[in-house]
Amino acid sequence: MQIAIVLYPGMTALDAIGPYEILRFLPDAELRLVGTETGPLMTDSGVLALGVTHSFAETPRPDLVLVPGSGPNTATAMADKQLTDWLRRVHETTTWTTSVCSGALILAAAGLLDGRPATTHWIAQSALPAFGAEPRRDDRIVRSGKIVTAAGVSAGLDLALWLTGEIAGRDHAELVQLYIEYDPRPPFDAGHPSKARKEIFDRANRLGRQIALSPGEFKAAATVAWRRVLTRRS
Amino acid sequence: MQIAIVLYPGMTALDAIGPYEILRFLPDAELRLVGTETGPLMTDSGVLALGVTHSFAETPRPDLVLVPGSGPNTATAMADKQLTDWLRRVHETTTWTTSVCSGALILAAAGLLDGRPATTHWIAQSALPAFGAEPRRDDRIVRSGKIVTAAGVSAGLDLALWLTGEIAGRDHAELVQLYIEYDPRPPFDAGHPSKARKEIFDRANRLGRQIALSPGEFKAAATVAWRRVLTRRS
Repeated sequence: MQIAIVLYPGMTALDAIGPYEILRFLPDAELRLVGTETGPLMTDSGVLALGVTHSFAETPRPDLVLVPGSGPNTATAMADKQLTDWLRRVHETTTWTTSVCSGALILAAAGLLDGRPATTHWIAQSALPAFGAEPRRDDRIVRSGKIVTAAGVSAGLDLALWLTGEIAGRDHAELVQLYIEYDPRPPFDAGHPSKARKEIFDRANRLGRQIALSPGEFKAAATVAWRRVLTRRS
Repeated sequence: MQIAIVLYPGMTALDAIGPYEILRFLPDAELRLVGTETGPLMTDSGVLALGVTHSFAETPRPDLVLVPGSGPNTATAMADKQLTDWLRRVHETTTWTTSVCSGALILAAAGLLDGRPATTHWIAQSALPAFGAEPRRDDRIVRSGKIVTAAGVSAGLDLALWLTGEIAGRDHAELVQLYIEYDPRPPFDAGHPSKARKEIFDRANRLGRQIALSPGEFKAAATVAWRRVLTRRS
């Protein structure tokens, strides 16, 4: 089984590294970190560099694809024709096509979420309908056929554990869960808009708007990407 | 505030990247990924490379230090005199000295856990007493003065969120928790030895022994490192 975790400049590292640390224990899995070109790229912190092991061209038939999100760079990735063309092409033969956080918008920009339920980071949910996707604001992971989308950043851990259960069975998933000691005990309980105090939500919303895109910008990026998909179809 | 996340060859990526994705939102924080030399190093998967931004020598006075663990390479890091000497030196002036997973054994090898309660990956708990540390098998994070140790791999998220609360206050911690949507919903509940089915625990234990050290090897590494600490003291 070939696993391709997509890396792109300005991505959010944990979106990819959470699932990576779980999916790498799938039996007989070949794990690749796939990008435009091999070598290091900078994540959204401007500090952490991750290494791409294989180019898109070198990876024509992955079995499992995972697309991470980004604060500031989702729109750039959505507009990256090489990435979205590759996603659309490999999706034809994948067993699973998945995303974490605003990675769902990149799947959407590739035209893969049209008419499907999906989830994404809470701050990006409102951008989904522009691509014909139906937001599921309260779901941590959403399966629609072979496409599985996860909520923001840390939700990739739950996604990967769920995928491990589907692919290798519950026993193996529990084995990996125990191995990475995934027995979360967050000291606070504010990880979802439905749980956060209003003033905290408002502040996070403002912070998110600063480092991510405004709804208008998402919509503009959506329009460009969507137009391309429609043009290709016609 | 200067944050130094230690990277070393063969480390477990999520041990560092989980906390990184939380600590980087501390107000006025300068985040560094610190290692023997700047540039890329390979993690324990043999696939994912991470980039070191600053050498130990360039980072003499970090305020917060975090040491990740490893499956197969903890003993190598414990025996890395440059790393343990640096840890002991910077610990004199840190505000917080912290570890995730078997990173606790690296703190221990630097002589920093003598006489202290601590936690680590469940598979490495039995190695703590050799360094004079008192294992706390059921605790996700253990604070002892300015030293805070976390349990295996994914426990770094809880550690970093707790630290954020201590350093920047509860409101800011909840803000970051919401931003990374840390509202865990693991599809299984087997993330701690006390929760795992016996057959799963036995298999994880065998897997862990294969990719990590045996108790005897931990003890041998412990003896070497400990002897060095004792020699230095006398």
